[in-house]
Amino acid sequence: MTDHAHGPDLASLTIAVLGGTGPQGRGLARRFAAAGLDVVLGSRDALRAQDTAATLADAGRVRGATNADAATAGDIVLVVVPWDGHAELLESLKGELAGKVVVDCVNPLGFDKQGPYALLVEEGSATQQAAAILTGSRVVGAFHNVSAVLLEDPEVERIDTDVLVLGDDREATDLVQALADVVPGMRGMYGGRLRNAHQVEALTANLIAINRRYKAHAGVRVTDV
Amino acid sequence: MTDHAHGPDLASLTIAVLGGTGPQGRGLARRFAAAGLDVVLGSRDALRAQDTAATLADAGRVRGATNADAATAGDIVLVVVPWDGHAELLESLKGELAGKVVVDCVNPLGFDKQGPYALLVEEGSATQQAAAILTGSRVVGAFHNVSAVLLEDPEVERIDTDVLVLGDDREATDLVQALADVVPGMRGMYGGRLRNAHQVEALTANLIAINRRYKAHAGVRVTDV
Repeated sequence: MTDHAHGPDLASLTIAVLGGTGPQGRGLARRFAAAGLDVVLGSRDALRAQDTAATLADAGRVRGATNADAATAGDIVLVVVPWDGHAELLESLKGELAGKVVVDCVNPLGFDKQGPYALLVEEGSATQQAAAILTGSRVVGAFHNVSAVLLEDPEVERIDTDVLVLGDDREATDLVQALADVVPGMRGMYGGRLRNAHQVEALTANLIAINRRYKAHAGVRVTDV
Repeated sequence: MTDHAHGPDLASLTIAVLGGTGPQGRGLARRFAAAGLDVVLGSRDALRAQDTAATLADAGRVRGATNADAATAGDIVLVVVPWDGHAELLESLKGELAGKVVVDCVNPLGFDKQGPYALLVEEGSATQQAAAILTGSRVVGAFHNVSAVLLEDPEVERIDTDVLVLGDDREATDLVQALADVVPGMRGMYGGRLRNAHQVEALTANLIAINRRYKAHAGVRVTDV
């Protein structure tokens, strides 16, 4: 999977996006397809996934499938489902996801009249919950803080943001950093171990608060790197 | 305290830095003094604070005092003590800090052989703990993610980073944003309510992990704002 002379070779890999019919999933799928990668959108409903995939045909190679079929097809599998169904979906796909690099992108957030806030997660974070369930997979956290609005907008050519990639498996985090790097403007950066995933997920609440205050689509850049 | 035509007027205010003899406190004191503000360093030991203040004389007006005297002298009081003594110090200064803008800068972190990690805080975050103790103060969280190494280095002219300012009191967060703005390169930005302070404190663990991986002094910039 890794070309040691030139870093990971992504061109031959299929990228699956579970929960790919939501804004974040669609947006990530659009960007990976636009970079020439082979993308499979997963949804509970294969027809819905196919319909969404058809709307992304202008970007590149995107097809739709059930989450299970997408998980089977993907070499790298992104999990972009709502927090509510996160554990249940992963339990159901434990077999399909065995041996694969699974990238958890889920932000466990709540909203009330005061705005967004981070939910407490028993395992520490969505990413750690995924790792606890998918004991046979190589679980990484990434793409938490990227604006779906910008990802989905075909007029936006560059996504100027850093993607913090969290994990304990160096080869897997390197691969996911390379995946972020295929998107113009985006930079994959190692962001710490799995046990430090919570704050990166939760920071999305702050970015939403910033978006509301400043009428922005905020992202994060790490300086001095 | 606020000049509505031109934003908060800081020139007439005294900035106190409790725990000002550590690297982060010294670094912040240096930068505020260099911007022409009147700074009082606090320490448990007044002589130690005076010694440290003397080392900052090249930067501007910095004097040393006990934490209690510094808290009394400060219009804005930064709390930059180790997490271990955080609650105890604030309990002891409840009276001195009443009515003041208190800026909590403390990151509750642990370290083991795998590196840094965020500690669980019963109140949710150091900033929320401060707010729970200092019921008569206006508590804000800020300056969590700024590299002490850069702050302390007189050769570094600009600190290119955003300072996320967390709080539920708009006038207080505006004032602290203005305080961050006095440092060249630094930009104060509203970062969300107090209940979203934890992840900003904890993100310092990720920045330390990034510093180790990339040999950097990482900071954060928010894009699109």
